[in-house]
Amino acid sequence: MTPLISDKILKRFLQYRLCLIKFQRLGFRKVFSYTLGEEAGVTAEQVRKDFSFFCIKGSKRGGYDIDYLLNAINDIFKQKGERLVILAGMGNIGQALINYQGFKENKINIIAGFDLDPSKYSRKYSIPVYPPDMIPEIVAKYHIKTAIIAVPEIAGQEVCDSLVSAGIKGILNFSPILLRVPDDVVVNYVNLRNELETLFYYT
Amino acid sequence: MTPLISDKILKRFLQYRLCLIKFQRLGFRKVFSYTLGEEAGVTAEQVRKDFSFFCIKGSKRGGYDIDYLLNAINDIFKQKGERLVILAGMGNIGQALINYQGFKENKINIIAGFDLDPSKYSRKYSIPVYPPDMIPEIVAKYHIKTAIIAVPEIAGQEVCDSLVSAGIKGILNFSPILLRVPDDVVVNYVNLRNELETLFYYT
Repeated sequence: MTPLISDKILKRFLQYRLCLIKFQRLGFRKVFSYTLGEEAGVTAEQVRKDFSFFCIKGSKRGGYDIDYLLNAINDIFKQKGERLVILAGMGNIGQALINYQGFKENKINIIAGFDLDPSKYSRKYSIPVYPPDMIPEIVAKYHIKTAIIAVPEIAGQEVCDSLVSAGIKGILNFSPILLRVPDDVVVNYVNLRNELETLFYYT
Repeated sequence: MTPLISDKILKRFLQYRLCLIKFQRLGFRKVFSYTLGEEAGVTAEQVRKDFSFFCIKGSKRGGYDIDYLLNAINDIFKQKGERLVILAGMGNIGQALINYQGFKENKINIIAGFDLDPSKYSRKYSIPVYPPDMIPEIVAKYHIKTAIIAVPEIAGQEVCDSLVSAGIKGILNFSPILLRVPDDVVVNYVNLRNELETLFYYT
């Protein structure tokens, strides 16, 4: 699947949401496109264009209602039900993710983990952990479309291939490698080292 | 400090590095700008422009030497010595980061953690953990310029203010909030939830 909506517009909406939550906490109820644009680092025109793309309406005089905007953004990201995810890799990063409050608070539910190491199959985690050859069964049983990869670099591509052939269409990848995937699979990368490297450059 | 080099060019170089490591593993020794550009998702012109910006040279016939490029990129990011970082927040994410191999392998050394919870001050972690009011002392003692924030949302801005007033100039922020910082401080954001949200949208 080639996405009809660009990744950039979606990321702007997630940025708008962060700004709106901040405004809401500061006690505001309404916001103008130029205020939101300034906070989000885009032009007022861009804000209005993005909102009208999703038929989100404001008034020239009063601006946009913040509650209404937040609900509309949550609708875009289909936040009504619970979102199910699987996790490949039960190392340090994987274990942190299964306990991550930011997921729990937003109905993101990691339902199973996969790891090559049999010592991880014991019941010591808050989710069941299986060997990687169980991926197709779990993906099919729970109709999972989204997975997180948090395995060492060397195992990244192999586990990615297993996930894709089981039917996964969206991958959040923490392994510091570029993954080869078919055109209908979307990969988001979180490269923790690279994020720090750019800071070292500046400081 | 307003960075003289844009964040975008630095991120492209980190992307080039990932591609080059992949090519190297596949057994290649030389690479052309169009091959690297295609893998990195930019034009060949962009690759050549970026390299010449840092005076990195190739030949039209033979292309660029991969070892040479990797060394040159590591030089840009001053990877020769050890880079010292402090960590605010010893929750799930913080604990994963202090054990993260991707940092250790690249001479990124988290030398101290800070947390409000006194139960974290015991010697159970691989780094010493202090109360937040020790931030100025540790930052000054080790000449630290870079910090990671992995505290809950509600404490994010306060801990950011403490870090900045202690002299921190680069922050990697895992708290899902926008931070207010002076112009001479650079913040990189890792918003784990947002990375998953865009995937849910597509899948």
